[in-house]
Amino acid sequence: MTTPVFDVLTIGNAIVDVLAQTDDAFLVANHLTKGSMHLIDAAEAERLYDLMGPTQLVSGGCAGNTAAGVASLGGRAAFIGKVAADDLGRFYRHDLNAVGIAYPTIDLNGGPPTARSMILITPDTERTMNTFLGACQELTPDDIDRETVEGAAITYLEGYLWDPPKAKEAFRQASRIAHGAGRKVAITLSDSFCVDRYRGEFVGLLKTGAVDILFANHHEVMALYQTSDFETALKLLHVDAPLAIVTLGPDGSMVLADGDRINVPAPPVPDIVDKTGAGDLYAAGFLFGLAKGASHQRCAELGSLAAGEILTHIGARPQHPLHDLAEQRGLLD
Amino acid sequence: MTTPVFDVLTIGNAIVDVLAQTDDAFLVANHLTKGSMHLIDAAEAERLYDLMGPTQLVSGGCAGNTAAGVASLGGRAAFIGKVAADDLGRFYRHDLNAVGIAYPTIDLNGGPPTARSMILITPDTERTMNTFLGACQELTPDDIDRETVEGAAITYLEGYLWDPPKAKEAFRQASRIAHGAGRKVAITLSDSFCVDRYRGEFVGLLKTGAVDILFANHHEVMALYQTSDFETALKLLHVDAPLAIVTLGPDGSMVLADGDRINVPAPPVPDIVDKTGAGDLYAAGFLFGLAKGASHQRCAELGSLAAGEILTHIGARPQHPLHDLAEQRGLLD
Repeated sequence: MTTPVFDVLTIGNAIVDVLAQTDDAFLVANHLTKGSMHLIDAAEAERLYDLMGPTQLVSGGCAGNTAAGVASLGGRAAFIGKVAADDLGRFYRHDLNAVGIAYPTIDLNGGPPTARSMILITPDTERTMNTFLGACQELTPDDIDRETVEGAAITYLEGYLWDPPKAKEAFRQASRIAHGAGRKVAITLSDSFCVDRYRGEFVGLLKTGAVDILFANHHEVMALYQTSDFETALKLLHVDAPLAIVTLGPDGSMVLADGDRINVPAPPVPDIVDKTGAGDLYAAGFLFGLAKGASHQRCAELGSLAAGEILTHIGARPQHPLHDLAEQRGLLD
Repeated sequence: MTTPVFDVLTIGNAIVDVLAQTDDAFLVANHLTKGSMHLIDAAEAERLYDLMGPTQLVSGGCAGNTAAGVASLGGRAAFIGKVAADDLGRFYRHDLNAVGIAYPTIDLNGGPPTARSMILITPDTERTMNTFLGACQELTPDDIDRETVEGAAITYLEGYLWDPPKAKEAFRQASRIAHGAGRKVAITLSDSFCVDRYRGEFVGLLKTGAVDILFANHHEVMALYQTSDFETALKLLHVDAPLAIVTLGPDGSMVLADGDRINVPAPPVPDIVDKTGAGDLYAAGFLFGLAKGASHQRCAELGSLAAGEILTHIGARPQHPLHDLAEQRGLLD
């Protein structure tokens, strides 16, 4: 097995976030379930945009956010995901290039526009996402750049890739290439509604060994095994996944591996502004540590550090160099 | 004189802000003078964008920011400025509509794209702006909607309108229409480099009575009268302008009118994140108060309140309803 060129390759939907503050009444009036991600079509995207308050545009998408986190920690990151050859696509590509993320995917021409997610932030800092997938629906196995996958210590895929019809094939192909090169494959369950849509397939990925590492929060784990008992879900997960990481919000995270379970508390974050991307950045910290050979305990600490930074501002990409923060906390020794 | 339909109409360059954090070395390497606004062409805009770090897009432009501030205070605001019929133009229009600002200007078709300003924020929170005027260069007297100007208690124009060649004609026409309807006309000097470019014309606007109210910071006032002695500049300004407001950063502001001079301190702002738009929001608060018949003292307090909110976050449009903040401080009695 050759030395990896990349610490982490992430594959996911390339989405520009359109952020606006709103109130609970707006969610109720528009039949939006707080805290979840709704897939919407072009017409609904137009309708909702016209109703929203003033917006900010920032690059987002779970996998893109995770790649940005790895890069901010000083890791070598790559990203695969589809944008269109339009203004938002150029914006998205710029933000990957600007932090040194390799991005081998070519633009989509003549199809739908670059994806956008209208993210409504309520005063309780919860975010409710309304995503028009656009060009992401055109990600195919042809976009899985073999050289990049073979060169990455870990390939990380988002569960949301199950939504665009051809992307799950791309996902499976990436897993095959990675394993063929002796690399690891990780997945995040993305959200509990996503789990509801594709439960059987996600469990299948674990049981068949297509995925080695699973990230989920406690809602998603319970959704995966259709139980309201967290302990039951954890036991089942522990059997199915060689390595599973369950995030617990302010209570930190839990790592299940080799018959062991460790709990790693997270330092408190006093002023939470926006929760968008906290899970994505947790994964970035954990995966960066794993690629560098750190202990699971240290990986989880790096995850909490990265998630903590993202909570302090609007947007899901780091605004302070995570490498410096990690060094200050002594997590890079 | 009929009752105004709008408290404040602002006219200016319609610009999308492209914000990125950077360091002083980047400014030096690119020969950029910290804290100033540079006009750049399309090629330089491309070059600089490719070099910049990850960005956020927010609607900006001095006059647009001021209109947003008036609306956030509960005032009736209108805006005139030129965007193109493209993604950024639509984004800009959305953000005006979303806060209830009337926007009678039609999109530019077949010309340059919507203007953007690459704003580099250094760790000292100073912003260095690099503006590609694009569609703003096509603002003409035809865009000055007579009904809107006649219906506004105050028409406020930005000095930057002197940069696009046809816009200064639009500016003069707006002044004539406003005065013909018995309304007031205000101007901001925008920045001291802008003053250097158009000093004679700006003083002429005051001396001929084309402008009734002038906003400037202390650098701009000294630039206007080409003196390094602030007191000398103030005396000259006091003679030329019926009403002049000079902002003094953390020291608040000074109002010169009717032979009187009042100093109004500003409450301290503990955590300044980004100074973009502080002057624009000060003008919003002052003009809102003036349109509502408040004393100059109260107008200045409203200005400092609005400027204080904008300093606490990235971007130059209010994120917290200014009406609520003003009410809490007892400034709306």
